[in-house]
Amino acid sequence: MDIDVASALPVTAADVLAAQARLRRYLDPTPLHYAERFGCWLKLENLQRTGSYKVRGAMNALLAMRERGDGRTTIAASAGNHAQGLAWAAYRLGMQAITVMPRCAPETKIAGVAHWGATVRLHGDSYDEAKAFAAELAAQHDYRLLSAFDDPDVIAGQGTVGLEIAALMPDVVVVPIGGGGLASGVVLALKSQGVRVIGAQVEHVDSMARALRGDHDVREPAMTLADGVRVKVPGALTQQVLGELLDDVVIVREAELRETLVRLALEEHVIAEGAGALALAAGRRVAGKRKCAVVSGGNVDAGVLAQLLCDVRPRAPRRPRRRVQESLPESPARMLDELAVATTKRPRLRPAVVTANTATTARNTTPISASTPIEIA
Amino acid sequence: MDIDVASALPVTAADVLAAQARLRRYLDPTPLHYAERFGCWLKLENLQRTGSYKVRGAMNALLAMRERGDGRTTIAASAGNHAQGLAWAAYRLGMQAITVMPRCAPETKIAGVAHWGATVRLHGDSYDEAKAFAAELAAQHDYRLLSAFDDPDVIAGQGTVGLEIAALMPDVVVVPIGGGGLASGVVLALKSQGVRVIGAQVEHVDSMARALRGDHDVREPAMTLADGVRVKVPGALTQQVLGELLDDVVIVREAELRETLVRLALEEHVIAEGAGALALAAGRRVAGKRKCAVVSGGNVDAGVLAQLLCDVRPRAPRRPRRRVQESLPESPARMLDELAVATTKRPRLRPAVVTANTATTARNTTPISASTPIEIA
Repeated sequence: MDIDVASALPVTAADVLAAQARLRRYLDPTPLHYAERFGCWLKLENLQRTGSYKVRGAMNALLAMRERGDGRTTIAASAGNHAQGLAWAAYRLGMQAITVMPRCAPETKIAGVAHWGATVRLHGDSYDEAKAFAAELAAQHDYRLLSAFDDPDVIAGQGTVGLEIAALMPDVVVVPIGGGGLASGVVLALKSQGVRVIGAQVEHVDSMARALRGDHDVREPAMTLADGVRVKVPGALTQQVLGELLDDVVIVREAELRETLVRLALEEHVIAEGAGALALAAGRRVAGKRKCAVVSGGNVDAGVLAQLLCDVRPRAPRRPRRRVQESLPESPARMLDELAVATTKRPRLRPAVVTANTATTARNTTPISASTPIEIA
Repeated sequence: MDIDVASALPVTAADVLAAQARLRRYLDPTPLHYAERFGCWLKLENLQRTGSYKVRGAMNALLAMRERGDGRTTIAASAGNHAQGLAWAAYRLGMQAITVMPRCAPETKIAGVAHWGATVRLHGDSYDEAKAFAAELAAQHDYRLLSAFDDPDVIAGQGTVGLEIAALMPDVVVVPIGGGGLASGVVLALKSQGVRVIGAQVEHVDSMARALRGDHDVREPAMTLADGVRVKVPGALTQQVLGELLDDVVIVREAELRETLVRLALEEHVIAEGAGALALAAGRRVAGKRKCAVVSGGNVDAGVLAQLLCDVRPRAPRRPRRRVQESLPESPARMLDELAVATTKRPRLRPAVVTANTATTARNTTPISASTPIEIA
């Protein structure tokens, strides 16, 4: 990393560390879970308060405001997690927050915001209309307008996800990208430790990937399961940070996303929303000895999840490689063993299922002996 | 606790500690997650290898066998998590395992066991027939027959769940009871620390609760979503331990179980199987300042979960109590604050939803000011 360039960025690693100190009192670190069949660690932000990492940025922004002696009401336009994060943070600190949501916003998300006592204004038929209205109200009443991603305090708050992953000593971390707030924060937190940071976007919902290539055309993003990253115009600050520091962006197909979401539920018992499964889906195409994907949130509608569970039949996972009789413990090599299991090419073995159609008398049954197909030698 | 009685038990706290030392190399501690809307901590054994705590007992049993120089094949009858736990442990240690499953066992569970290379024998039309056949094979071939719950090594292994909860300093821990293996282990681990341990069973699937009251009639348990605890005859060892040490058993209705499972998924993004939601459902009737419920497993069929997500519409959670403007940080009182939120009676407030049907011109909109229904004062 070029020090001169890095120090010219609008947010720095020091801001992320400051955010961690602020948030420590309010938010516990979320778990890291090893998804054995994916060969990948997961940072479970779906277990974060309000079900997504967004609360970190909102909380950091409110705390930083308070430190500056700024007691204004905060207003944000959002149809989802940013609104819920802001509502929770405002509730927790006893501060005032208003969220403007489009009239088409799902009932559950409106209820989620209202639950924490924030005022909900329903306005307009799209996110863009809601956003314009929020800006108007902010100007009219001198509210603080809080962007979901293009704000230094928000970026620094999201970066605390990266600091919590650092203890794992990963070689590569994959994060979903919508506006780029999470990716910017994480890359600021981890870049100086030599960790590669890869962004994940969905096919035809790739405004940031295009912007980083120099294509700034504004196009309507495709409809996607990952509604949380469906952003038409990526952030300016985040483009600057990611342009300097991000290693790569992987584009994921919608079908891969759906399959990953269902496998996460059935094999790992982790409920992710569309955007929450995105990094893991991308991670399957990323090489690494110690990979970590951020499961950014879990706020998926009951109906959507039920439909996916009915529609998507994931392929059977690869069989694990054969293991030989283990020698008695010498060194605590469990973690290395796990990595070996995860990264070695594994032969696809036939399952050793024997159907005993015979009666329960011992004479009639196939005796089980060394010649029976037992796969462990 | 009467020391004389405790030391006469067939398994002791020392056995649980020995199991922890054995398992440390193979199994990471599972996360503890605070479920804010339930006011209860969750021990997430659904994130355990193979998706349930059962792998602890199976692994401890195999390791203890190896220490004793016993290299026999292990056989178990099970239609579910015990079989998967045994298969994984045998895979991990390069030992031989056979599971006998009834022919009606779900395809996914058979695949789960075969995935780890254990031999699967399909036999009989019920768990009882499979169990008899396993016993017969064990006698015929000198296999070790491993009970899912009525075995000192298994009980000690499951008790490591309790040791991991101890760090939380709970005042009460709630665990699901089928055969009683998990409850016995946890009560051995926590009783001497002054923690109350409460068992949870389902209405008409309550063989242990009846046995502890002295009613030893064998009755066919009712059909239940919590198939993992559908045990006709509870363990003898476990009865002895629980008879001495367990504080109470709470009986849960099927409808409460279904609602808790769905709320766990939608509000906490945690996938629990039926038995996995049982302790939390019971915990809602247990008083405690710092409660912890064990989410024992997450192996639920995709179809069952999809159906529940469609059918069950949980009531809206209670609104949090009002918070006043927080003073600047003095002491790290976050955890105490959270407890206060969780245990205080909260008024049910009307959501502050304002629908702005008007155009985006500022003149036409209702100005948001201190008089607008903002709930946070």
